[in-house]
Amino acid sequence: MTTFDVLVEVRLRPGIADPEGATVERALPALGFGGVRGVRMGKAIRFEVEAASAEEARRTAEELCRRLLTNPVIEDAVIEVSPPVRQAT
Amino acid sequence: MTTFDVLVEVRLRPGIADPEGATVERALPALGFGGVRGVRMGKAIRFEVEAASAEEARRTAEELCRRLLTNPVIEDAVIEVSPPVRQAT
Repeated sequence: MTTFDVLVEVRLRPGIADPEGATVERALPALGFGGVRGVRMGKAIRFEVEAASAEEARRTAEELCRRLLTNPVIEDAVIEVSPPVRQAT
Repeated sequence: MTTFDVLVEVRLRPGIADPEGATVERALPALGFGGVRGVRMGKAIRFEVEAASAEEARRTAEELCRRLLTNPVIEDAVIEVSPPVRQAT
């Protein structure tokens, strides 16, 4: 088995209200960030998965998103599986 | 000026307690995810920056992280600037 590093980005779906992002955006002009727009706040979740292959690690991450990490009504997830850096012995 | 898409991942620094990640991790064995470990919860913040170059967009994002998006005592940020997909006219 190999240990894969996984990064899941959980984002609000387009059209879903994002009050936290809107609050950040309202603060920007007063701080001098005139050219910043469209702020959307999401979650970045990192974890390690023991799996036989990157494909299996990705399937585990997808199942984990579906069952625990996201609310599919308002959120979607982008999963990134990094190449293994260590082998479990 | 060009519009760049920026993704900022805000992570808790190593060694900083992550109660949200620990709670997710405690739930995993009961859900059948035995091979998942080291869950860390962070933020994924997306926004658009109007800038003359990718370097300027990155500098704006770094300043924004420093002043508004992160608490540098407990968090660090990874900034990813995507190549522009549209030109402002």
